[in-house]
Amino acid sequence: MISSIQNPTVKFVRRLQAEKRFRRREAAFVVEGTRWLQELINQAHPLQFVFYTDDWQKNNNHLDILQQVTVSAQVVSDEVMAAMSDTETPPGVLCVGQVAPLPLPDQPSFLLILDSVTTPGNLGTMLRSAAAAGVDGVLLTPGCVDAYNPKVLRGSMGAHLRLPVHEVEWAEIEEIVGQMAVWLTAVSNATDYTTINWTQPSAVIIGNEARGVGDEAERLANGRLTIPMHRDTESLNAATAAAVVLFEAARQRRKQLTANSM
Amino acid sequence: MISSIQNPTVKFVRRLQAEKRFRRREAAFVVEGTRWLQELINQAHPLQFVFYTDDWQKNNNHLDILQQVTVSAQVVSDEVMAAMSDTETPPGVLCVGQVAPLPLPDQPSFLLILDSVTTPGNLGTMLRSAAAAGVDGVLLTPGCVDAYNPKVLRGSMGAHLRLPVHEVEWAEIEEIVGQMAVWLTAVSNATDYTTINWTQPSAVIIGNEARGVGDEAERLANGRLTIPMHRDTESLNAATAAAVVLFEAARQRRKQLTANSM
Repeated sequence: MISSIQNPTVKFVRRLQAEKRFRRREAAFVVEGTRWLQELINQAHPLQFVFYTDDWQKNNNHLDILQQVTVSAQVVSDEVMAAMSDTETPPGVLCVGQVAPLPLPDQPSFLLILDSVTTPGNLGTMLRSAAAAGVDGVLLTPGCVDAYNPKVLRGSMGAHLRLPVHEVEWAEIEEIVGQMAVWLTAVSNATDYTTINWTQPSAVIIGNEARGVGDEAERLANGRLTIPMHRDTESLNAATAAAVVLFEAARQRRKQLTANSM
Repeated sequence: MISSIQNPTVKFVRRLQAEKRFRRREAAFVVEGTRWLQELINQAHPLQFVFYTDDWQKNNNHLDILQQVTVSAQVVSDEVMAAMSDTETPPGVLCVGQVAPLPLPDQPSFLLILDSVTTPGNLGTMLRSAAAAGVDGVLLTPGCVDAYNPKVLRGSMGAHLRLPVHEVEWAEIEEIVGQMAVWLTAVSNATDYTTINWTQPSAVIIGNEARGVGDEAERLANGRLTIPMHRDTESLNAATAAAVVLFEAARQRRKQLTANSM
């Protein structure tokens, strides 16, 4: 059992939790909870370490899961788990995974571009929504919070493992979107998002929570969309706006699929 | 200038920030920021106190806003503002408003029912989305977090002032919904939410973030809806799910209005 927070592996995990630069250098991330461990196993995602507490392994179901782990799985004291954990009440199991984003398809037909989204909770929620809405991939501009920030991972509920999520420069984004219709969210001079034909290859740019989209986004986009709102509401939460647009696109795409298969 | 945190009014505000029971007893709530103050003035919402710092009032625009305030507006020291504030970096103006929910319409045609939503950020976001989607009112079941919790107010961006938000017992909910179609969100044996006719009088029940809806919701509902999801995604964030359903209803209602006016 690891019982000292001076243990080098424990220190390694704590640095991964705290420092974006260290996560980059090591190409590693930390997630917590049985659900995440199961998800990593299901997706056969490359793992580096698994740590768990005595209490956690007392559950038979958890022992079954542990047997599927092929890397070093070590029991740690509650104190060590608390020191490594990013949460106030650690779930009792913590994994270090390798950063290995899924590849984007050669010809994506539906992309989400996040322009300087800085709130970790928002980014996590957006990734979860994007996976559910059937997006082909998510592109994060340089100004975004790190996709492997512990809070982002917590909110994404495993979306990183099922959806291509890539941090890219604007020049690269321009190449990837190619001839797609690129929409940004705007307040004025904009098209009702429900009247847009989302069955065409499309990308949606969602901007920063406070400042909206930046100049590069304005240059790249060839259309402006808006979500009509009641009761003098000026704006939606950025993650909400993203979900509303993505699921309208998903609705149209599902409808077309059904029509085509009849 | 108020410069002591021992001042009785300062203590009153701090208790309002901290205690749900005290907010109930006093039928008062606390909000912060220029935007909230402007919103309270615009909606002619009953105010009790306004407090601001020297720094805040140095902005000419802020002085113009202050002149529209008809209740006691008092300058306070930075230290007092920090003590009264619920945020780490206080925006410099803080208001105490009276709890005075807008009345529900006699015959609502579109309601949101929140069943034991306990995350303040989620509740705030849902109120903001509900206002934007044109909901007639939001009903909160007894298990919900207090609608006037500082974090809920922060996320709602003023929705409380523009939308009827009522904390009610299940018996009362049953009376209010009357003959409306009542939908709850479910994973199985459920209707694709986009195939439902939302132009009929409808209510949507959204459940707790982890546990979903409870027994009373199951009893009250006469339909189960689901949001089809890709990439093995099991669920959406509760506030996301609410927004996706509400904005599909809004889309159908807008379309019908347009059709009727042709």
